Amino acid sequence: MSEWATEKTEDFMEVRYRNDGTLFSGKSEFQKVEVVQTRWHGKMLLNDDLVMLTEADEFVYHDMITHVPLFTHPDPKKVLVIGGGDGGTAREVLRHENVEKVVMVEIDKMVVDACLEHIPVTSDVLKGHPKLELIIGDGVKFVNETKEKFDVIIVDSTDPIGPAQPLFGPDFYRDVFSCLSENGIVVSQGESPWYNVPIQKSMMKVLGDQFPFVRMYQFGNLTYPGGAWCFTYASKGLDPIKDFDTKRVEESNMKFRYYTKDLHSASFALPQFLLDNVEEFFRG
Amino acid sequence: MSEWATEKTEDFMEVRYRNDGTLFSGKSEFQKVEVVQTRWHGKMLLNDDLVMLTEADEFVYHDMITHVPLFTHPDPKKVLVIGGGDGGTAREVLRHENVEKVVMVEIDKMVVDACLEHIPVTSDVLKGHPKLELIIGDGVKFVNETKEKFDVIIVDSTDPIGPAQPLFGPDFYRDVFSCLSENGIVVSQGESPWYNVPIQKSMMKVLGDQFPFVRMYQFGNLTYPGGAWCFTYASKGLDPIKDFDTKRVEESNMKFRYYTKDLHSASFALPQFLLDNVEEFFRG
Repeated sequence: MSEWATEKTEDFMEVRYRNDGTLFSGKSEFQKVEVVQTRWHGKMLLNDDLVMLTEADEFVYHDMITHVPLFTHPDPKKVLVIGGGDGGTAREVLRHENVEKVVMVEIDKMVVDACLEHIPVTSDVLKGHPKLELIIGDGVKFVNETKEKFDVIIVDSTDPIGPAQPLFGPDFYRDVFSCLSENGIVVSQGESPWYNVPIQKSMMKVLGDQFPFVRMYQFGNLTYPGGAWCFTYASKGLDPIKDFDTKRVEESNMKFRYYTKDLHSASFALPQFLLDNVEEFFRG
Repeated sequence: MSEWATEKTEDFMEVRYRNDGTLFSGKSEFQKVEVVQTRWHGKMLLNDDLVMLTEADEFVYHDMITHVPLFTHPDPKKVLVIGGGDGGTAREVLRHENVEKVVMVEIDKMVVDACLEHIPVTSDVLKGHPKLELIIGDGVKFVNETKEKFDVIIVDSTDPIGPAQPLFGPDFYRDVFSCLSENGIVVSQGESPWYNVPIQKSMMKVLGDQFPFVRMYQFGNLTYPGGAWCFTYASKGLDPIKDFDTKRVEESNMKFRYYTKDLHSASFALPQFLLDNVEEFFRG
């Protein structure tokens, strides 16, 4: 057991979390998977030495990747989650009463199993839910082959290295577009506005070539390097501000720890340096 | 020369920046002061081993501590900056054409001198500006003794350890209130919503006991631990959203790297967990 769980950003920065015990460590055919007991942040999942989530702040990411598209869409009935093996995104999607079916396609069974054993706060839902179909498989292949249509697709992926790489490309998003229903929305993990500018530009270009409406939104992630983090938002037309009816949030009676109806719209107000990087790819 | 410049958060976390050369290291009567050449973030100022600023992201903090109050106030003519020894806040204040006089009171001459020598991007303005009066002295004493009135006071302080401790207390803010003109606004460095909750509550209580209008706003700071960071906002009545005239930003013709008129209002939309901590102290 190492004294620290360490995430390196290239050769110039390291964030080290005190490791009070490694609960799981394995190597799947896709990546290294670890669950560590940190001193302050609760249990932490790392894939290939990158922090995926901690118990202390997982609600931030899961609130913002889920509730922004699900409250923008007026009646999301079918939702597809690509990745998200920890279960947190599926958990939040399934809190929406309109939702009738969630398909979740996670490529790495080891992530699901490690979370089921050690991080129940996100993964309990994966034990079984009447509205959830959990597929261990390749999300790229799934969207290429399925005949189903979804109202919202959430791409809850790791960085574009290892198994997630094709999830950042144009072929994948062409298939995503085809799988979306008439008012469909796709939201994807959108990386750091500081350290991943080329990836952000590339994602936004891919989306802008495919979708009539494209934006980016930001949130403050405690345990991703640099804190500020983004999701991409693309749709067949629905505008996350103009088409967002705050009454849907109020009438849901749902409680959140991060998301609020004010923060929903506010998260699309981007800093100027980020606009300078990605605004040219905005559509609609 | 150490291989890393390291900021520790208690005993549970460390953020380490590759140190390609220590440019300055001294011990003043108040604190340890260092300037380090990092590999990615440019030059970095550390006081007592806490990152104060880096060349890469100083514009975030300085935009948000300055332009939010200076564009909320309809005609800020006199501005007081407490702390801010690197000069970045004074630099941004002096870009506002309405401003006729800035008094800056920094307690630690060593911070000013180290920045003047090594971080000109923030400190050049401190070499001399016709509208700037730079006082090396105690800000607490200054607000207690001055007969001047200010339209905006900016408390650009370090954490409430060492020299900055009295800047977080009720006596200081009673004097700040007295120094503010009729429509006065005070904005203060407001700590981390994750790691400094007791300080945030204490600051908000102190402000709420003194000011008729109190809020908090957030921004994404690259190099403060956890990224998400806050400023407190208190005024004799001016509301940073309702009394904010976006035309003043447009007509200023000023360019920013972080601040935008949309982000101005959006930054007051706080995550639910932060509202749960501080909303009880909101006033007005």
